[in-house]
Amino acid sequence: MFDLFKSLRRLALMVGVSVFFTPEVAWAQSDPLPSWNDTAPKAAIVDFVEKVTKEGTADFVPASQRIAVFDNDGTLWVEQPMYTQLAFVIDRVKAAAPNHPEWATTQPFQAVLENDLKALAKSGEKGLLELVMATHADMTVSQFEEIVTSWLAEARDHRFKRPYTELVYQPMLELLAYLRANGFQTFIVSGGGIEFMRPWTDKVYGVAPNEVVGSSIKTRFEMRDGNPTLFRLPEVNFVNDGPGKPVGINEHIGMRPIAAFGNSDGDLEMLQWTTLRPGPSLGMLVHHTDAEREYAYDRKSEFGHLDKALDAAAVNGWTVIDMKADWKRIFPEQ
Amino acid sequence: MFDLFKSLRRLALMVGVSVFFTPEVAWAQSDPLPSWNDTAPKAAIVDFVEKVTKEGTADFVPASQRIAVFDNDGTLWVEQPMYTQLAFVIDRVKAAAPNHPEWATTQPFQAVLENDLKALAKSGEKGLLELVMATHADMTVSQFEEIVTSWLAEARDHRFKRPYTELVYQPMLELLAYLRANGFQTFIVSGGGIEFMRPWTDKVYGVAPNEVVGSSIKTRFEMRDGNPTLFRLPEVNFVNDGPGKPVGINEHIGMRPIAAFGNSDGDLEMLQWTTLRPGPSLGMLVHHTDAEREYAYDRKSEFGHLDKALDAAAVNGWTVIDMKADWKRIFPEQ
Repeated sequence: MFDLFKSLRRLALMVGVSVFFTPEVAWAQSDPLPSWNDTAPKAAIVDFVEKVTKEGTADFVPASQRIAVFDNDGTLWVEQPMYTQLAFVIDRVKAAAPNHPEWATTQPFQAVLENDLKALAKSGEKGLLELVMATHADMTVSQFEEIVTSWLAEARDHRFKRPYTELVYQPMLELLAYLRANGFQTFIVSGGGIEFMRPWTDKVYGVAPNEVVGSSIKTRFEMRDGNPTLFRLPEVNFVNDGPGKPVGINEHIGMRPIAAFGNSDGDLEMLQWTTLRPGPSLGMLVHHTDAEREYAYDRKSEFGHLDKALDAAAVNGWTVIDMKADWKRIFPEQ
Repeated sequence: MFDLFKSLRRLALMVGVSVFFTPEVAWAQSDPLPSWNDTAPKAAIVDFVEKVTKEGTADFVPASQRIAVFDNDGTLWVEQPMYTQLAFVIDRVKAAAPNHPEWATTQPFQAVLENDLKALAKSGEKGLLELVMATHADMTVSQFEEIVTSWLAEARDHRFKRPYTELVYQPMLELLAYLRANGFQTFIVSGGGIEFMRPWTDKVYGVAPNEVVGSSIKTRFEMRDGNPTLFRLPEVNFVNDGPGKPVGINEHIGMRPIAAFGNSDGDLEMLQWTTLRPGPSLGMLVHHTDAEREYAYDRKSEFGHLDKALDAAAVNGWTVIDMKADWKRIFPEQ
């Protein structure tokens, strides 16, 4: 919060006006991370932020270079029992099935329609890609945006009975806000679809559309009856996962982040790219250890495999967040 | 400037402090676009900005949606007698020639080494691509950044005898600043290489690396001796020109701009995408009409072909900037 006052003062000096204020405003002293227990991860965050924002020290990082990147699934919101985007795919296949009678006997569509998750898993990456293309392509970008928005408004998580956009981690919302209040720009860098996230990340996380990096399919510009149109093609453009994450970061952000937050092996290279260089940096992994309040999984999980990255954390000094021990609260209040 | 005061006041209210200021500060009344003559383009800019920033009106656009996109070559800086990036390619080929004796007798390299622009032109797009790959790939992103930075520090334009980064248009610098002061986020959307621009756009234009959209080659992430490395591959990733510009805008920005500035047919689709939709928008084309102070060219030019877009301007109500008549000054003072 100190930075806000400093900015205000600087702004006031710039425009040549008089600004008077009492520096001891109550909330400026209050805890910016109230949903975090007073354990090591919270201390690591606060130490890092204080270090890089302290002018005149060797660790000071100018605000323009304070880039923080966040994985989404399992880092900012729940990814169990399946990625939300997969729940979307399944619902959309079911909704479109009446127009596709052939799907009743064609895999992987049949598996979806029969709720046969084993057969679905057997169709592998190729099958998943077919489902994605059948539900994400052959429409304009604005049509897809509308579909995602109205689906998210209706859909509910089966266990928690809440909209997916409410199953975001309250401690991470506080962390995003805390970093931004200290001059950081916060980006999402997810394996999920960039256009699946953009319709809601600003409202839910305060992350604007141009601060979202994700996987994408190709689009084509066309003038249709005098209207400029971006049409979504059934062809992969970029897979923003694993070694793709530093590539996506470079393409979209063009600067090396100084802080990275993930929860799976798909985030390993992003954390390496962020932390293995000179200068201060922060790497953190959310470890899902709380079966009661959320889920508990790591090395053997089907989704969000946390194995190599957990070993790398020990070697590289990344902080592992033990969800059960370190988070006072998991979700925002209803 | 009014907005700055409003923001200051709002900020002050938010943090609960007292702010006193005299609204009649001298410079707040001064002209934000002093290098523009008082002709139609300047009026169009000011009218548009006042319109979209006036709360409580039908034309008001929230700051988060005030996206302005700028072409670079010929719109923000000089593109004659050749794109600066081509001058870079030529210099780099010459610098690397001692290590490539075979280039003396291999096109298109031979053409470059013999300053034979006709033969170079004859090698066409394929030849150009070969030259780009020979000079832009097979190195890390940070190596390329260093090469671009040191080349720009040394290279001089032959006619004006100034660094290329000084051959930027002063009226456009003022326009960028004026838009930003009114809550706009300003992006470069260029056919040029994204990594060729990023090392200097912040310093020269106030456009941060993540606000640059451009053409790119593929990169690959690798751990090399424990160091995370992004390696530039000799393979085209994306061509951000013509119909590619709306695609690049959607990929990077994820919002439709409300203002677009270009100077050639390569900007046609970007201006269509920006202006042909409901709500207020501004489309402008820089028309190079000043052979004495800069260059005069349009429909028949080899570079920055302005033909279809000029016709489209008349049909769509885009404003054409007549450089000779509308700009008081072309370049910043030395």
